[in-house]
Amino acid sequence: MTLPTKADLIKARMWLEGMVHHTPVLTSTTFDDMTGAHVFFKCENFQRMGAYKMRGASHALARFHLDELENGVITHSSGNFAQAVALAAKMKHVKAKIVMPENSPAVKVDAVRGYGAEIVFSGNSPVDRENKVNEEIKAKGMPFIHPSNNLNVILGNSTATQEFVEQVTGLDYIIAPVGGGGLLAGTALAAHWFSALTEVIAAEPENVDDAYRSIQSGHIEKNETSDTIADGLRTNLGDINFPIIKELVHKVLLVSEQEILDAMKWVWERMKIIIEPSSAVAVAAVIRYKDQFKGKKVGVILTGGNVDLKEMMKLMGEKE
Amino acid sequence: MTLPTKADLIKARMWLEGMVHHTPVLTSTTFDDMTGAHVFFKCENFQRMGAYKMRGASHALARFHLDELENGVITHSSGNFAQAVALAAKMKHVKAKIVMPENSPAVKVDAVRGYGAEIVFSGNSPVDRENKVNEEIKAKGMPFIHPSNNLNVILGNSTATQEFVEQVTGLDYIIAPVGGGGLLAGTALAAHWFSALTEVIAAEPENVDDAYRSIQSGHIEKNETSDTIADGLRTNLGDINFPIIKELVHKVLLVSEQEILDAMKWVWERMKIIIEPSSAVAVAAVIRYKDQFKGKKVGVILTGGNVDLKEMMKLMGEKE
Repeated sequence: MTLPTKADLIKARMWLEGMVHHTPVLTSTTFDDMTGAHVFFKCENFQRMGAYKMRGASHALARFHLDELENGVITHSSGNFAQAVALAAKMKHVKAKIVMPENSPAVKVDAVRGYGAEIVFSGNSPVDRENKVNEEIKAKGMPFIHPSNNLNVILGNSTATQEFVEQVTGLDYIIAPVGGGGLLAGTALAAHWFSALTEVIAAEPENVDDAYRSIQSGHIEKNETSDTIADGLRTNLGDINFPIIKELVHKVLLVSEQEILDAMKWVWERMKIIIEPSSAVAVAAVIRYKDQFKGKKVGVILTGGNVDLKEMMKLMGEKE
Repeated sequence: MTLPTKADLIKARMWLEGMVHHTPVLTSTTFDDMTGAHVFFKCENFQRMGAYKMRGASHALARFHLDELENGVITHSSGNFAQAVALAAKMKHVKAKIVMPENSPAVKVDAVRGYGAEIVFSGNSPVDRENKVNEEIKAKGMPFIHPSNNLNVILGNSTATQEFVEQVTGLDYIIAPVGGGGLLAGTALAAHWFSALTEVIAAEPENVDDAYRSIQSGHIEKNETSDTIADGLRTNLGDINFPIIKELVHKVLLVSEQEILDAMKWVWERMKIIIEPSSAVAVAAVIRYKDQFKGKKVGVILTGGNVDLKEMMKLMGEKE
């Protein structure tokens, strides 16, 4: 495939100017002592609306012509992308319609509504929500933004790593969690063009190891279940992001549910920051595979911090 | 009284060079929208060992002559100061003995032990622990560092605000929680010498309003109870810090237990950082008294982030 060019990535960053935060990088002496690596955490949990998804959503929205947006935009998501599109649309004074499964947690529905988006409920299966989106598009004709399998979303996401490699030069590795593949593709592109000696590695829950199997087989593999606490990583790769991933990413590190929980708790307690389970997947990978990272300069993307505190504490309490 | 000089404060900062972190300042658009103020949060929860106490403890320790430290140092504390002295002593290769009440939470005892300090248990009353300290000093002759009523501790604490007023110029107010008075005195001194137009305001739980009453009466008043979730603020002012506070601080804002909890939860959920209840007292003060801060540039010292996650979640769950 022909990769998006360096100019494409630079342009995405220019379009995002002023729409998203330049997030800080934190370090932890204790984490470095524990792993033997020099680890740098890119804090997208401090991003607007609490996750890197704001980058992809804002960029995708910014690239439409105004007359395409007369009837607003539409997406489907029960998670951070729903909030990201809602907030980006609000900032641009554009209407947003979000298709959410009926079983979405009330706290997420409220957050999306809080940003002023209109919510349309669908059935709970992926097919249900795609059908509902198609119905709406047929009726209103507004453009659809896919949460991960959309080139402008991927280019927007790449800006996190464009910043990261400026903030910390000479990273040996960058570890990003993989779910739908939109962050991983953007991360790999940014490293490829701006920090060519940095290897991008994916981290994935064992329970939804579709990316691991896809990279092995060379085809997009599906998950049988979505049974992981890393709720942002339950989706499958797509035909736009997978070719990029296939070309640039060669390793996926798998971690268990217990390792995800332990890593999340460690970061909360020791680094004093709130990260969501999907972010903890990348942290857990450094801990579990620390022998691979000894003495290396390792970047970890903390993708977001949107959690239901009560639910998280129940998890941490139960599994201890 | 004769205040410590500007040179005293500058010297304290020089002594601390390399021993403590220069902590970041965070902002939150949502918090500003909610309060109408421009609020800057000085993140001492990201300080070494998780609280500003590291500054005072490290400075006090650094100012002893080596031959005074042959038998180590001693302090009494069931909280952050115990950990701070333990870690500072470890970094200086000095022995530390910490007198802790028998009813100290296991998690805190473990943390102090984790930094390599020796723990001596005492009875649970303030008198019990002072007696135990005096016994130990009599036997071994090591110097004692009081957690808040010690000039070098106060000067060490002042460095947080010395940094803060460089990071954010033109603050109208700085709000610091008050317990034993060591942070408040240091904050007031730093503002006095380095940002003379900045007014320092104290924040205190209604349930332990001794500082509020002390500033009104001009004498050190005591608390009848220690019934607050802000466990770092249960102590009384001392004869070294009170004269400084009396001269430089004229306002104490009181907040309820529910307001402390709500503020803590807000910061966790929206700012994605872990703060302890004592820190939330200052945040709660800005929220409750927001009419006083409208349009103003307000600095808030987030004093620490050492919490028992399970206990906190129980609190947040119960009181909702």
